Amino acid sequence: VEYLEALDRDECLRLLEGRGVGRIGITVLDLPAIFPVNYAVHDNEILFRTRGGSDLDVATREMMAAFEIDGTDGLYHEGWSVLVVGRCSHVTDPAELDEIQDVRLSPWAGEDRDLYVRIPMEMVSGRRIHHGHP
Amino acid sequence: VEYLEALDRDECLRLLEGRGVGRIGITVLDLPAIFPVNYAVHDNEILFRTRGGSDLDVATREMMAAFEIDGTDGLYHEGWSVLVVGRCSHVTDPAELDEIQDVRLSPWAGEDRDLYVRIPMEMVSGRRIHHGHP
Repeated sequence: VEYLEALDRDECLRLLEGRGVGRIGITVLDLPAIFPVNYAVHDNEILFRTRGGSDLDVATREMMAAFEIDGTDGLYHEGWSVLVVGRCSHVTDPAELDEIQDVRLSPWAGEDRDLYVRIPMEMVSGRRIHHGHP
Repeated sequence: VEYLEALDRDECLRLLEGRGVGRIGITVLDLPAIFPVNYAVHDNEILFRTRGGSDLDVATREMMAAFEIDGTDGLYHEGWSVLVVGRCSHVTDPAELDEIQDVRLSPWAGEDRDLYVRIPMEMVSGRRIHHGHP
């Protein structure tokens, strides 16, 4: 028997802080797309980097996006996932840019990813699949 | 130095056939969402299961969706991802349902996932990040 448990916000945040790679779901030319990104949690936001002019740049200009992480606990079927949904924006304020330089955050695809994108962690949900009985 | 290599269709299909868990990007109540699914490749389609009446059921009725897998090759930053974009539909034809019973495909969240969803592998793209020089 397997059952799905909803994770509370604290548990979701704990899981978000423990990972470094997630997937961002955006719309590119009216079609859905998902790409992996290296991310960091900072000041109640998901932060990741991309290259100016990329699909990710264009798709994250004040647009709604989904951000997901997941993991398995080693056993077949046992797993969890966390979903963040929010309006993306670019970090442009010099003081903020200065502050996040201290955040350890490497881009997934090379050091020319000069643009910082953030998603507020407002809508956060998570689930875990258990074996056994509730 | 890192650079991004586009993967050809054959390489994408090879990677898709070698994994069992991917992420599906859908729209739920006008908001983007991403969920992990166990999947199989069958007859040029991505197949996964869900429960009738679930968000995934409702969001995959003749709707466009993104499906993604990714992996890393152990070294920091080194990784790849494959993206399939297509119009989802449910498998309802009895002969087809009979045929896919033979496909090894366990649902991510329990055996009550009685609905089979497919995404045609028409729009398939992939990328790999390399260290070094092209």
